[in-house]
Amino acid sequence: MTAATTATPRTYSGVIPPVITPRSADGSVDTASLERVVDHLIDGGVTGLFVLGSSGEVPYLTNAERELVMTTIAGRNGGRVPLLAGANEQTTARVIEEGRRMVDLGADALVVTTPYYALSNAAEIEDHFRAVKAAVGVDIFAYDVPIRTNAKLPLDVALRLAEDGVIAGVKDSSGDDVSFRRLLLATAHLPGFAVFTGHEVVVDGALLGGAHGVVPGLGNVDPAGYRRMVDAAAAGDWAAVRSEQDRLAKLFTIVFTPDAARVSGGAAGLGAFKTALVLLGVIEDNAMSTPMASLDDAETAAIADILRSTGLL
Amino acid sequence: MTAATTATPRTYSGVIPPVITPRSADGSVDTASLERVVDHLIDGGVTGLFVLGSSGEVPYLTNAERELVMTTIAGRNGGRVPLLAGANEQTTARVIEEGRRMVDLGADALVVTTPYYALSNAAEIEDHFRAVKAAVGVDIFAYDVPIRTNAKLPLDVALRLAEDGVIAGVKDSSGDDVSFRRLLLATAHLPGFAVFTGHEVVVDGALLGGAHGVVPGLGNVDPAGYRRMVDAAAAGDWAAVRSEQDRLAKLFTIVFTPDAARVSGGAAGLGAFKTALVLLGVIEDNAMSTPMASLDDAETAAIADILRSTGLL
Amino acid sequence: MTAATTATPRTYSGVIPPVITPRSADGSVDTASLERVVDHLIDGGVTGLFVLGSSGEVPYLTNAERELVMTTIAGRNGGRVPLLAGANEQTTARVIEEGRRMVDLGADALVVTTPYYALSNAAEIEDHFRAVKAAVGVDIFAYDVPIRTNAKLPLDVALRLAEDGVIAGVKDSSGDDVSFRRLLLATAHLPGFAVFTGHEVVVDGALLGGAHGVVPGLGNVDPAGYRRMVDAAAAGDWAAVRSEQDRLAKLFTIVFTPDAARVSGGAAGLGAFKTALVLLGVIEDNAMSTPMASLDDAETAAIADILRSTGLL
Amino acid sequence: MTAATTATPRTYSGVIPPVITPRSADGSVDTASLERVVDHLIDGGVTGLFVLGSSGEVPYLTNAERELVMTTIAGRNGGRVPLLAGANEQTTARVIEEGRRMVDLGADALVVTTPYYALSNAAEIEDHFRAVKAAVGVDIFAYDVPIRTNAKLPLDVALRLAEDGVIAGVKDSSGDDVSFRRLLLATAHLPGFAVFTGHEVVVDGALLGGAHGVVPGLGNVDPAGYRRMVDAAAAGDWAAVRSEQDRLAKLFTIVFTPDAARVSGGAAGLGAFKTALVLLGVIEDNAMSTPMASLDDAETAAIADILRSTGLL
Repeated sequence: MTAATTATPRTYSGVIPPVITPRSADGSVDTASLERVVDHLIDGGVTGLFVLGSSGEVPYLTNAERELVMTTIAGRNGGRVPLLAGANEQTTARVIEEGRRMVDLGADALVVTTPYYALSNAAEIEDHFRAVKAAVGVDIFAYDVPIRTNAKLPLDVALRLAEDGVIAGVKDSSGDDVSFRRLLLATAHLPGFAVFTGHEVVVDGALLGGAHGVVPGLGNVDPAGYRRMVDAAAAGDWAAVRSEQDRLAKLFTIVFTPDAARVSGGAAGLGAFKTALVLLGVIEDNAMSTPMASLDDAETAAIADILRSTGLL
Repeated sequence: MTAATTATPRTYSGVIPPVITPRSADGSVDTASLERVVDHLIDGGVTGLFVLGSSGEVPYLTNAERELVMTTIAGRNGGRVPLLAGANEQTTARVIEEGRRMVDLGADALVVTTPYYALSNAAEIEDHFRAVKAAVGVDIFAYDVPIRTNAKLPLDVALRLAEDGVIAGVKDSSGDDVSFRRLLLATAHLPGFAVFTGHEVVVDGALLGGAHGVVPGLGNVDPAGYRRMVDAAAAGDWAAVRSEQDRLAKLFTIVFTPDAARVSGGAAGLGAFKTALVLLGVIEDNAMSTPMASLDDAETAAIADILRSTGLL
Repeated sequence: MTAATTATPRTYSGVIPPVITPRSADGSVDTASLERVVDHLIDGGVTGLFVLGSSGEVPYLTNAERELVMTTIAGRNGGRVPLLAGANEQTTARVIEEGRRMVDLGADALVVTTPYYALSNAAEIEDHFRAVKAAVGVDIFAYDVPIRTNAKLPLDVALRLAEDGVIAGVKDSSGDDVSFRRLLLATAHLPGFAVFTGHEVVVDGALLGGAHGVVPGLGNVDPAGYRRMVDAAAAGDWAAVRSEQDRLAKLFTIVFTPDAARVSGGAAGLGAFKTALVLLGVIEDNAMSTPMASLDDAETAAIADILRSTGLL
Repeated sequence: MTAATTATPRTYSGVIPPVITPRSADGSVDTASLERVVDHLIDGGVTGLFVLGSSGEVPYLTNAERELVMTTIAGRNGGRVPLLAGANEQTTARVIEEGRRMVDLGADALVVTTPYYALSNAAEIEDHFRAVKAAVGVDIFAYDVPIRTNAKLPLDVALRLAEDGVIAGVKDSSGDDVSFRRLLLATAHLPGFAVFTGHEVVVDGALLGGAHGVVPGLGNVDPAGYRRMVDAAAAGDWAAVRSEQDRLAKLFTIVFTPDAARVSGGAAGLGAFKTALVLLGVIEDNAMSTPMASLDDAETAAIADILRSTGLL
């Protein structure tokens, strides 16, 4: 029996979607819709929530909005699933302040990127995580997203941080599947250390390789699909895993419906998730944070077609 | 029954390693060793050979050496498995000349990258493949290796080339597993179109996702391991697939043994493969093409340890 | 007579160094030293101050520290020179909040980057600057620093923003001297529009090409040198310009003294400026923000040698 | 008196344009037009010719075409100016073969890039240049063009090669003006070592900084303009330098006339140079090598307008 098919005692594993942030047409955070998203996700079987991630438009939220989102999700969750929260700031001191704020508002653990806007070397990246961990007093997960931070978390740094208990896991959105597999192999001896993939369409391979969980933006739309895939993997039913992944990969094409000249790549994905949730009756509006464009009627119609062809509508 | 478990009529599928080019200590191509590599691979169960790929040090070979390598492999193979050959040149006219030369010397199909050194746009990349195909009269495979050519094969271009029968398949060494999966899904309706991964340690996930073959540099060292993995996938035994992949991923750590200050990343991988083949008694010397450094005694000892721990020595 | 030799009515031109942020050995912002830096710069002839730039370690400062720095500099300046302040946050809404705070504390104009951590397209970048300008009510300068934000300010966007009066100028730290020259040529017809270079060692060429000012981190160390260069350019004495630039380029080698394995590129430059200011008696300590390493005794000695050989010690 | 205003004994200095390769409408190399280009350049006052550079479409030429171009230029030149020739191949052994061929056909010196398609480290790059120099027996210039080779020539490697007499100079097309200035300063003590800029619109600044020459693709169109600029710099007349540069920068906008969706960035520049030379009556046709698109009538008309407004038509 392989590790992937073993039930583990990990606190954080399974399906942990990055919760989107609904906005009303007037631009304000729509807390009623956000509460419905929380229910939609937990009803779909997710095993945790990632609050204030990139899919939550965290770089676009003011501090007051970040606090409102955290408070709303924590309140609605009511302890049903663990809450990981992004402490998303440029560098160490700011991350610590942000992280403490989120813990005070209900976060169980924090998700921390490499420094950004700053130009760091490997030693600084390592010291950054050590200083944050020492200051915040909860589990922290390294979020490896070089397309946004411009710095890949070096594998040797990740390993030292893992072995020293500084980080409880890694959320990998690096797009580097070779380093992902190497991280899995190199940390296999650490009980409880968790490796999550952030890439929606390669979860089957990640699970076969031993990944402990998935943080899919698309999980906002179809949490139950990801849960079925993770359960099938735990049961060793890889044909079912792949079949579910193929369906979810087809669903993921909603992110390619927007006009690339008008809508940026970042806005296209999040806008598609929001539009799908409007179509599913979960949220009121697909409005995006300034300066991102919202999806229009033609794009909404294309997304509805895909939802229908994948069994969601 | 999924596509991955269906026997296909594909001419090119399964395990198609990029054949390394042994050199003697004096720097000349060692054809006797090269012939033993061919036997080692075919005895190991490979279903094709990729001649003059990056792992064959093709950018380092003179034209005379390229011809010698092609002739030697074709002669020793004697038609046992199909031969794909790299037509590795900067742009269209040069690729065509190189490709024709290789077909004349025995290549069954050609492997063609996007233009390099040149600065191309998508339209030029598409025209490049169309012009090469029109000129060479054999199957061509697109080799997507942006780390070397500095240009990712755009997915829409690949699809048009696939649907128009210009390319018979893609060898993906892009490191972009999301686009790899999207290519698989988008070409699933094209009978015979072949998608290969070039990444040694994520073959399990690629096969689960429906990949038709693997072109592993590490396959020079352990062709039988990759063949077992592909066969297990065809039989739907994913636990065996993963177990074999885990062992091969451990074996792959031979490429991390060299001193990075002395040996470049490119030379480290190829040097490790050659050193392992010396230790396995297949080739005479681990000499590299100028200006790459060859691996030393300490690095050789480290590689021997890994070969032992993975059952090869 | 060329534009470069004409006295202009620009509010912002000449030498506008990005003010460093001194810290005490205990890590707190050292306001007494910061006040001495302000005097050192104004006594050296600078024509403006750039507060809370990258050289001011802005991504490392907490909000309270940013306010303390802004207040301290504004107080000590007492209106002697105009103050440009960085409104350095990820995206639009956060930049607006930060900018308003800085204007309230005394900033005359704001310096705004393209969005970062976010993944933006050209339309979003343009809307970002328009939204910030509409909200803050003071002059804004676009700060083009793709090495940090991962997004080059597109030339056509910059031109539209310039022609529409959205931005009053550009601070270019893109390292792309061709686009810098093109921006100068394309905005030459806009009276008052200001183009500054942020690169310390190519100011001579930038001035010859018509640049209106320089924002040199090294100007913290030798403001008078940069002032002499700008004055010589205004007088058309290009031999003097080049001679001064050669001396300053030699002085700039202080940034290459730190051990690259220990000190990151970012910390090396700022640490060298701080160390030089300690040696010049302007600030108390060369301490850096966490997690950046401070320069050590050997590096300090090397910097002292360079200060001596360039006439500063 | 500064170095820039001193007459030097350098064999290679001044204006050394990379000669374009005219093609007839049928795609063949048009040697009659090429001979007229040679005369046009020498009549314009150039002090050398760079044969088979990127502007000569070298990656697009077959070996037979490369030999034809080299032979044609050498024959027409008849020893009037020195000939630098690109030995443009992926790695060491291939560069040596190519270089020897060009020397046999009349090249006085060779221009050599870092290895490409290969993935090299600094040690390999250094050994590459040393091995080429040892084999070819003529002066070699390092051509630093990371946008094409994907590897910046490291400054410390360039310095060691310069001090050991391996390279006679550097042609810098790196777009990194800071490293360009540092190279100038660091090699100022080496008599005869030559640093050339390849960037058409920042030659004024490069000359002010002490550059010894310029290798401008645009020099195919207006060699006399570049010669005037270099002469003005030697005379210390920097107002004239800048005025000439401003005019040439305006002329350079011909490269931005093509439709970017149809014509790649590479093809746009070369196509614009060719189109201008057709308009000037120097060559017969503006045909490009496959797969690059040639400029059309609308683009030609736009270029004619620019030629008129800059005094060439």
